[in-house]
Amino acid sequence: MSEITTPSPAETDVGSTSGERRRRSGGRGGERVRSGLTGTKYRNLVNTIDKTSILSPEAIEDIHSASLIVLEEIGMDIILPEARERMKTAGADVTPGSNRVRFDRGLIEELIASAPSSFTMHARNPQRNVSIGGNNLVFAQVASAPFVADREGGRRAGNQDDFRKLIKLAQHYDIIHTTGGYPVEPIDIHASVRHLDCLSDLVKLTDKVFHCYSLGAQRNLDALEIARIGRGISMEQMTTEPSLFTVINSSSPLRLDGPMLQGIIEMSSRGQVVIMTPFTLAGAMAPVTIAGALVQQNAEALCGIAFTQMVRRGAPVMYGGFTSNVDMKTGAPAFGTPEYMKAVIAGGQLARRYGIPYRTSNTNAANTLDAQAAYESAMSLWALTQGGGNFILHSAGWTEGGLTASFEKFILDVDMLQMVAEFLTPLDVSADALALDAVRDVGPGGHYFGTPHTLARYETAFYSPILSDWRNFETWTEAGRPTTYDHANRIYKEALANYQQPALDPAIEEELDSFVAKRKTEGGVATDF
Amino acid sequence: MSEITTPSPAETDVGSTSGERRRRSGGRGGERVRSGLTGTKYRNLVNTIDKTSILSPEAIEDIHSASLIVLEEIGMDIILPEARERMKTAGADVTPGSNRVRFDRGLIEELIASAPSSFTMHARNPQRNVSIGGNNLVFAQVASAPFVADREGGRRAGNQDDFRKLIKLAQHYDIIHTTGGYPVEPIDIHASVRHLDCLSDLVKLTDKVFHCYSLGAQRNLDALEIARIGRGISMEQMTTEPSLFTVINSSSPLRLDGPMLQGIIEMSSRGQVVIMTPFTLAGAMAPVTIAGALVQQNAEALCGIAFTQMVRRGAPVMYGGFTSNVDMKTGAPAFGTPEYMKAVIAGGQLARRYGIPYRTSNTNAANTLDAQAAYESAMSLWALTQGGGNFILHSAGWTEGGLTASFEKFILDVDMLQMVAEFLTPLDVSADALALDAVRDVGPGGHYFGTPHTLARYETAFYSPILSDWRNFETWTEAGRPTTYDHANRIYKEALANYQQPALDPAIEEELDSFVAKRKTEGGVATDF
Repeated sequence: MSEITTPSPAETDVGSTSGERRRRSGGRGGERVRSGLTGTKYRNLVNTIDKTSILSPEAIEDIHSASLIVLEEIGMDIILPEARERMKTAGADVTPGSNRVRFDRGLIEELIASAPSSFTMHARNPQRNVSIGGNNLVFAQVASAPFVADREGGRRAGNQDDFRKLIKLAQHYDIIHTTGGYPVEPIDIHASVRHLDCLSDLVKLTDKVFHCYSLGAQRNLDALEIARIGRGISMEQMTTEPSLFTVINSSSPLRLDGPMLQGIIEMSSRGQVVIMTPFTLAGAMAPVTIAGALVQQNAEALCGIAFTQMVRRGAPVMYGGFTSNVDMKTGAPAFGTPEYMKAVIAGGQLARRYGIPYRTSNTNAANTLDAQAAYESAMSLWALTQGGGNFILHSAGWTEGGLTASFEKFILDVDMLQMVAEFLTPLDVSADALALDAVRDVGPGGHYFGTPHTLARYETAFYSPILSDWRNFETWTEAGRPTTYDHANRIYKEALANYQQPALDPAIEEELDSFVAKRKTEGGVATDF
Repeated sequence: MSEITTPSPAETDVGSTSGERRRRSGGRGGERVRSGLTGTKYRNLVNTIDKTSILSPEAIEDIHSASLIVLEEIGMDIILPEARERMKTAGADVTPGSNRVRFDRGLIEELIASAPSSFTMHARNPQRNVSIGGNNLVFAQVASAPFVADREGGRRAGNQDDFRKLIKLAQHYDIIHTTGGYPVEPIDIHASVRHLDCLSDLVKLTDKVFHCYSLGAQRNLDALEIARIGRGISMEQMTTEPSLFTVINSSSPLRLDGPMLQGIIEMSSRGQVVIMTPFTLAGAMAPVTIAGALVQQNAEALCGIAFTQMVRRGAPVMYGGFTSNVDMKTGAPAFGTPEYMKAVIAGGQLARRYGIPYRTSNTNAANTLDAQAAYESAMSLWALTQGGGNFILHSAGWTEGGLTASFEKFILDVDMLQMVAEFLTPLDVSADALALDAVRDVGPGGHYFGTPHTLARYETAFYSPILSDWRNFETWTEAGRPTTYDHANRIYKEALANYQQPALDPAIEEELDSFVAKRKTEGGVATDF
């Protein structure tokens, strides 16, 4: 498992630019962990463009103040006695005999100030560590879809085979920095042990950071142990090196459920990452105005973030935004809309105001891989890039408003994410790039096809997309007029064929298998939540 | 022709939001010109977001300086004796017995300083006037495609029927602010009189500003006369009210051909609008580096802009950017790429440095209406919006790298342009929008579906897209799983069925017909260029 990998020609068609491959040194055969198969070009993305603001600083303060009024006057329903107890101890106003907790604005402001503005999430392969916060931009795979789809198999409930294929794709592409949970729910595995099999796969089939669901303390504890085993470190060390993340959704409006609160307690107390994400659909679980939905999003996010800091000062946490609108005709969720774009950018302004890393998503509500899937996603990417998203969940594969993980959409998203990364690469304006000598050589009326300046740069000058079909109409017609969907269908299979399992220390693998077997013998977890 | 128009139910499915329709007052029956059929919501767009910069001010100066060196040391080939004569008079260095002209940097800087930073283009319907420059954002239809396509007819050479249908679509949608030339070349009309028929159609079938091709002085003169007749004004008045625009392309690298130079002379001398657009494809007609291509773009643009000011101080002119890259495999032009995005944004920085309105384009190189068509266009829109484009040629319908005007792509683009317009609409953060009272009313655990706050705003709260299919998977499946392409195919026909010809004063129509008939009798123009 430690031989030097050489990209095959087929792989070259699938992945990043050939120039990058050529420059990549392959002489690290003694390494414990093999490098990514598609190069390292898209690791450690930094988004240095000035972030776009759509709200004035005063408007941001208005949203901030309104959300503090919500927490102070209305409060949140906190559906876990232990959490209410901790909140009371921290100084919150807990109404006896009820779930309602109100928070003084000073308390909230003081607590969120202790959340770190940046941190590193540690993978079992240190080359896959990701920096969260600042200008860093991290792309995580689709998560939590009940259905899976590809052209041949259609749309269907997910199973372990689909689950494994999807996380292999996440491993294959360097632009996918972490997985994001279960890309699809594998319903052929019993719920009591599903997390054990899935987390074990996430350690073995990928070497990237992964997520655990907060669905009861035992699942968190199992995930923590599996992450620890995967990294081959002590729990003490892991407490100082965040290695696992969980998404905490409030049950909007203004409620935090027991398993979610328990998840914060288990994860934050051990220094692991909480992504606090209200799901504030304007007109459904939040006010119909985007500003009102943002007030509610902000109130719920600040409440959850404050709770992480009650559990452990300095615990790593992200500000999650998931405000969108609904279809006016049906009430169905809509994504990648102008309203979503505004919410994403305003959410970024709020997160930056608090100095807390910002999580957002690459969304769409399309039922197939048509133009809609592309424009809703592209507009999501526009907003989250200009808005300064740090951690982008559902970056690749999410479709149908999150109901389906699509193999073809995964490839489309990988291509679009790579385009975003290329767009963010600074433009070379060196004297050599300004090319005055080349312009002198060619002069008026000539062309640059065969000049030394062109020949020296041609193959690596531009991004080579995975999917875009730039053949002329006649050649494209001769090829059977393939669409993006056709190309994506072919390429996801090629990528799976080229997938290579990352090396894993046999001792770690044995410890992991043994832990999973033991926990299965114990019956896994109760499933009556 | 002056009755009050009432939108039909079918129309409501096609156009802008129903709320907008309801608010629109229809009591202007005495007006000479009927209002737009899809409301007035998207007229006079203003892009108030902070424009994105990808280059430092120093880098912009480096490009500026390098382009002045190009003009000073290398110069341009100016393929028209009259133009060289005018340049010599203005102080340029004309090499005797050759086409080569070199320009002192002081001369260039002094001339471009006299170009206006903003101006109005006047339509025959004053409600269709467009403001150019500053934060104004104007969308013009696809121009100059040799082919046309729709699903049933496939891709084929354009004819007058297609031409007329496409300009009717441009008239129908309010988000399309001007036509952009011939959306498709109608090759069934003889080239000697084609401009007469086409320009006559542009006056009769639309009431928006239009373009004339600079393909010899007589075509410009005929277009000027037709624009003057359409507006019912004197040529003297028109000289102070720009009413016609022409795109001037340099023959990159570093050459301006005779008809283009003649076009500048005819148009600028009469105060009409010149859009000076080098077509600098990196690696083909320009250096392979984007920075180098921008240097060349800037040199050519500044040369053409300076010439407009030699012809007439203060003549309205735009800085056109059309730098993109090529497919590394085939040398074919590529569009909507990360390199295109960078060039668009850097071009905007250059145009703003000079205080000259910026023209750019909504591009893609797809062969059909698939995801590629959408993501390349969406990424173009991202760049031109964030980059501060003022006048967007090829906004709707352009596909296959400009070779084809697509009916379905036109609808897709209209939808995406409307999304951009909605995105640019300021977010309401009034106390009412912040919705604290609604949050109080609903409280934790409730929902907002039927609250008064929601009911009062529901129907107009969000953009209602033309194409996005947000039905759930089952309903969508029952409907036959239509794609965006299917919807666009249906909707362009509905829009054509709902097209209404704008009113035109019978006296103007008679004068126009008489002029066209006279010019046809005279044989139109020579076609030996």
